[in-house]
Amino acid sequence: MSTCVTQPAGTEQGLCFQKEIDATRNNIDTFWLIFAGSLVFFMQAGFAMLCAGCVRTINIKNIMLKNLLDACGGAIGYWILGYGFAYGSNDNAFIGDYNFLLVNADGMTGYDLSFFFFQWAFAATAATIVAGTVAERCRMIAYFIYSFALTAFVYPIVTRAFWDVHGWGSAFRSTGPRMFDVGMIDFAGSGVVHLTGGTTALVAAIILGPRIGRFKDEHGVKLLHPKDMGSHSVILQVLGTFILWFGWYGFNPGSTLIHSTPDASYTAAICAVNTTLSAASGAISAFGLRWFLSEEGLLDITALSNGALSGLVAITAGCSVVWPWAAVVIGFTGGFIYIGASNLLIKLGIDDAVDAIPVHFANGIWGCIAVGLFATGTLINKAYDAPTTLYQGWFYEWGNGSGDGRLLAAQLCGVLFIIGWTVCLMFPLFWTLNQFGLFRVSREEEQVGLDISHHGGAGVHLTKPTAEAIENHRRSSLDKSRSTHGQSPAPVTATKVIEIEEGGA
Amino acid sequence: MSTCVTQPAGTEQGLCFQKEIDATRNNIDTFWLIFAGSLVFFMQAGFAMLCAGCVRTINIKNIMLKNLLDACGGAIGYWILGYGFAYGSNDNAFIGDYNFLLVNADGMTGYDLSFFFFQWAFAATAATIVAGTVAERCRMIAYFIYSFALTAFVYPIVTRAFWDVHGWGSAFRSTGPRMFDVGMIDFAGSGVVHLTGGTTALVAAIILGPRIGRFKDEHGVKLLHPKDMGSHSVILQVLGTFILWFGWYGFNPGSTLIHSTPDASYTAAICAVNTTLSAASGAISAFGLRWFLSEEGLLDITALSNGALSGLVAITAGCSVVWPWAAVVIGFTGGFIYIGASNLLIKLGIDDAVDAIPVHFANGIWGCIAVGLFATGTLINKAYDAPTTLYQGWFYEWGNGSGDGRLLAAQLCGVLFIIGWTVCLMFPLFWTLNQFGLFRVSREEEQVGLDISHHGGAGVHLTKPTAEAIENHRRSSLDKSRSTHGQSPAPVTATKVIEIEEGGA
Amino acid sequence: MSTCVTQPAGTEQGLCFQKEIDATRNNIDTFWLIFAGSLVFFMQAGFAMLCAGCVRTINIKNIMLKNLLDACGGAIGYWILGYGFAYGSNDNAFIGDYNFLLVNADGMTGYDLSFFFFQWAFAATAATIVAGTVAERCRMIAYFIYSFALTAFVYPIVTRAFWDVHGWGSAFRSTGPRMFDVGMIDFAGSGVVHLTGGTTALVAAIILGPRIGRFKDEHGVKLLHPKDMGSHSVILQVLGTFILWFGWYGFNPGSTLIHSTPDASYTAAICAVNTTLSAASGAISAFGLRWFLSEEGLLDITALSNGALSGLVAITAGCSVVWPWAAVVIGFTGGFIYIGASNLLIKLGIDDAVDAIPVHFANGIWGCIAVGLFATGTLINKAYDAPTTLYQGWFYEWGNGSGDGRLLAAQLCGVLFIIGWTVCLMFPLFWTLNQFGLFRVSREEEQVGLDISHHGGAGVHLTKPTAEAIENHRRSSLDKSRSTHGQSPAPVTATKVIEIEEGGA
Repeated sequence: MSTCVTQPAGTEQGLCFQKEIDATRNNIDTFWLIFAGSLVFFMQAGFAMLCAGCVRTINIKNIMLKNLLDACGGAIGYWILGYGFAYGSNDNAFIGDYNFLLVNADGMTGYDLSFFFFQWAFAATAATIVAGTVAERCRMIAYFIYSFALTAFVYPIVTRAFWDVHGWGSAFRSTGPRMFDVGMIDFAGSGVVHLTGGTTALVAAIILGPRIGRFKDEHGVKLLHPKDMGSHSVILQVLGTFILWFGWYGFNPGSTLIHSTPDASYTAAICAVNTTLSAASGAISAFGLRWFLSEEGLLDITALSNGALSGLVAITAGCSVVWPWAAVVIGFTGGFIYIGASNLLIKLGIDDAVDAIPVHFANGIWGCIAVGLFATGTLINKAYDAPTTLYQGWFYEWGNGSGDGRLLAAQLCGVLFIIGWTVCLMFPLFWTLNQFGLFRVSREEEQVGLDISHHGGAGVHLTKPTAEAIENHRRSSLDKSRSTHGQSPAPVTATKVIEIEEGGA
Repeated sequence: MSTCVTQPAGTEQGLCFQKEIDATRNNIDTFWLIFAGSLVFFMQAGFAMLCAGCVRTINIKNIMLKNLLDACGGAIGYWILGYGFAYGSNDNAFIGDYNFLLVNADGMTGYDLSFFFFQWAFAATAATIVAGTVAERCRMIAYFIYSFALTAFVYPIVTRAFWDVHGWGSAFRSTGPRMFDVGMIDFAGSGVVHLTGGTTALVAAIILGPRIGRFKDEHGVKLLHPKDMGSHSVILQVLGTFILWFGWYGFNPGSTLIHSTPDASYTAAICAVNTTLSAASGAISAFGLRWFLSEEGLLDITALSNGALSGLVAITAGCSVVWPWAAVVIGFTGGFIYIGASNLLIKLGIDDAVDAIPVHFANGIWGCIAVGLFATGTLINKAYDAPTTLYQGWFYEWGNGSGDGRLLAAQLCGVLFIIGWTVCLMFPLFWTLNQFGLFRVSREEEQVGLDISHHGGAGVHLTKPTAEAIENHRRSSLDKSRSTHGQSPAPVTATKVIEIEEGGA
Repeated sequence: MSTCVTQPAGTEQGLCFQKEIDATRNNIDTFWLIFAGSLVFFMQAGFAMLCAGCVRTINIKNIMLKNLLDACGGAIGYWILGYGFAYGSNDNAFIGDYNFLLVNADGMTGYDLSFFFFQWAFAATAATIVAGTVAERCRMIAYFIYSFALTAFVYPIVTRAFWDVHGWGSAFRSTGPRMFDVGMIDFAGSGVVHLTGGTTALVAAIILGPRIGRFKDEHGVKLLHPKDMGSHSVILQVLGTFILWFGWYGFNPGSTLIHSTPDASYTAAICAVNTTLSAASGAISAFGLRWFLSEEGLLDITALSNGALSGLVAITAGCSVVWPWAAVVIGFTGGFIYIGASNLLIKLGIDDAVDAIPVHFANGIWGCIAVGLFATGTLINKAYDAPTTLYQGWFYEWGNGSGDGRLLAAQLCGVLFIIGWTVCLMFPLFWTLNQFGLFRVSREEEQVGLDISHHGGAGVHLTKPTAEAIENHRRSSLDKSRSTHGQSPAPVTATKVIEIEEGGA
């Protein structure tokens, strides 16, 4: 333990205490990022379960592989290039050029290292958003190339722009003029993470085309209603949703990046509250609207679950700068946007196996715009240490007749840049892959399922004992007296067998 | 970073350091509640998996929907009314009346906001306990009404009584005389959370009646042994148990509400240890007793898993005030109580699809009483900053011949109030719903399963490729040379196919 | 809040501030261990899902039971004996003798209690490693005896040796000469935890023998290729992998045991980064090598998933003392080692149902040796507060032509001790159990599956409605007008039914 008291009272002791306190605050910040980064990493499991729940059993191995692979490929890609491009410490407003491969690790503080960890977890999240959309038909090679490109270059440039202190569009910018004097406020990444991933998913879905049988029958005749392909399990879908929601408490509150000042601590807390309320509101509004619109008054678990995710995506940009009532409004609207976008995709004949586009693309946009509407100076002041007067959501400006909508303008420009940038890089990439036949599996492979055609067989097996095994066991049980390990006596076993066959069959 | 050293040594500098230290402690407390609250929220996933594992496959969508919906409805209900009733800061001993809809958010500190987040997670837990008990036959409308009522009013009144500093029955009470001069000690809520939820589950189960075929055959003749309805998967059941156990480390240690004093820190640590030992003891005793009582020496995973949960519920009230050896005794007894209560329910013809009543109701009572037996002054002094002499578990009083059992009396009164209050509100509610036919689904809907009758179809699908698809793929594989993406050559594929059919079939 | 300012400036105030700061640091350390311990406990769920994914459906209840039981038995065993042997505070270099059953809990600080909690979680991890290897054929009684023995005695002696300040082989040793003047560096337990568990798994697998039909057909003729027994689900396998990876962020960074000094905080952060990079590298190298070696260019999810786990195990010893580039090298090599060891096991006819031996045994060894190669003085100085010059990985010594490989020597001796110690205790135990027929189930029980023979029936049930129930519901739907709860009208229901049968069938 420390020993400032041994120092002479006065200056020396004062310096010693100061050092102690500063060190403690720094330790808290590092702890905070390790805690938050771990939760964000765990969202990988959430995405994986969500996908596993939504695809067909014949493509399970394939989708699991993609989900795990992009976390790994993402880590390597972000380590080699991504981190250096995003946060390499030159003062270029567009791109960094330092600490690739963490070659300068020996110059990094503990906090810097935890910051790398936290940022990697975010990059991996951006990459994995696409997996579900292109499920059941995308080739592994294409998936690997795209996810490396995204984490190594496309995403880092976006983070540089809106999160780095040098970034040209960032509200954190300290080294030059800010866009419209304010910069874009995208606190935890409705735009930077979800819109970037969502746009990539949209581009991929358009070029890749729908799954066979989704919109047309075998004769190529358009179906009246798109075919439900037969999702594997709603249990996994809901488990994924809960894991993602849980991880979001690292994603949003953790985006304070520190927890050692009263303002940061306050911001983290309001992020947790807003994240909760927006998720709940989005779930209820999407669920209610789907029920209202369906002829049979359907109580749709998918709408509830994706509605919650939509609320989470929508509040991600503004969680730190809006009041709880606004979080409810943002989430509630997010649920409606999800239903609308989901129906629109079907009208357009764009096939998204997990509805990632309505959740991450549509609500990523909405989340950024919502900041321009509902952000309040009081909270921006805490979260961004920015002049209250300059930063006002349009709702407040309109309320007090002041302001000129510059924040809303900055948000819109940010959104347009993210979409534009991502499309400009991803469209050519996917288009090229497609031209060379590297993007989509063959018709035969798709119809038999990717697990058989690429991964050596089915991903789920329900085995049952043979009749012979059952008979042998029944006999041996009868022969033996009840052992301490208690075989069920024959009759019981018998009934069980029937259950098993039900189970298996 | 801070700058106290720039201030003149002496008073100014002293005040500056004090401010720094107090702020740091406050930040730690906020961090602590965000950490703990996140873990408590994740328990929602645990309950969901537990339910998914215990119901039949034909009701999967329905139970998943309920589990996710009560978290969302609970958030809205607690935001609108619940929090204000529970912690609204007037000094009424029964009910608060302030900060509904968090309209006064602008007056809340960061800590206050994290406190709201933490308390919401608890409210959602209380609500979700009931889902499993009424599974496979309860209508969604009834479930939605009850869960809103519970989180918005019933549960908040109980928290006010036993956790708020104004609460009439609380050991934390600072604004008036305490019940029997001591107040009830229910540290993390064996009574407040689990007994409230468990009582609701019991009332609901009685009014709702058992599932068709559980106790009687189709001709209405009572079965010798209640029918095992065919739980979906023990894997999900165990996953749920592990997630709940994990979340309990936020639930119990987190209930210190702060982590910035040596006493709070000590209390959190002993809570973690006691929670662990009680869970393990409960699991082993329930598992052992079930094995001992069963004719065939059954090794029953359900007893092990629910025994662990019983130990967790039983230690929740006393985790901060009993020594580890007592935690083992409490947990071990809890396991026995689980088996006894579970068998009793069957005798009484009360059908509980997930045994939530033995776990949360029976062990909720036991947990509160156990405090009256094993609580030790030394620890109460740390956890409640209360006079050691007044607070003694009956076991110690009897040991040293002192005391008058007032703590045990307070615990019993608390238990009776919680049961009484919950029954008085919930019985009329469920009874009315039942009268209007809003509580239970029709016989036809129940027998065909709620997923078909209410949610548009099955929640789990095992698809397999058609024979034609397999043949097409086999041929195309033969035609093509081995590509870099490696279709398995025909013979391999062939064998795989058989496996698949096994898998699917 | 604190009140140092009320004290007279100068000495009293200085002492007061010192006390405040020291207390705060201590609180942070306790918080840190509760956070990390919770994540480590959650790894139990990861192991459980990994096992559930890898065994056959006919043994699900059995494997779930083992996974949950060893966490519970481990807690009791560690509480009764293990903790006292490992950390009981006499100064014996081999074994402690104090605080069994936590009888001296009243003398423990909050930090001590959180330390017990953290260490228990580690002990439970060591125990559960074996469950998967012996799955599908091991008797419960044997499993229970071994896991108690491991957590109560075998593992604690190893932790004493390499982690306790009195331990004869520990780099932390402060009470006597260190092995080769340096002691073994096994920061988070590649050796102490994973090699101990892995060696036990290896011994058990050899004595227990392979599953029926794995290497020989029913006539006892050796198969050309070992039979794939039909793993239940890759979804659960991947879920388990993600949960384990997540838990590892408590396992490795948490092993700093404190977080209140700049060095500890730095060490925790670099542990998080290295853990990430090694996991990712291991996954990619194992996946790539498996693809390269397979004739059909197989994209193998199991290699990817176990490769990640191999990278995690391999970096566990050195996460605090190697630079990120070295973590990549260690992980990448770990992936190769996994593939090699896995193939070797098959050649040797040793049957490991989840490949725990290649992951935990082979990479446990590699992890310890890797420290001797890549550990750098700069980081050892932070993590172990040790003289930089003495501690050098062989790679650096060779680079600067200095040193004498003493660290590498210490690592090798540590590895040999752990293997030797574990074999010497576990071989006789398993051999004896085997002699008395307590180790392996009967041929009939194995073939019918352990769920039927020991646990009262199948662990997974897919139920579907009877044709009669469907018809009844269809009719009642037709009769009734659409209710607010919306039964799907007949035609829709009809189609659904078919899906269900697909699902079930």
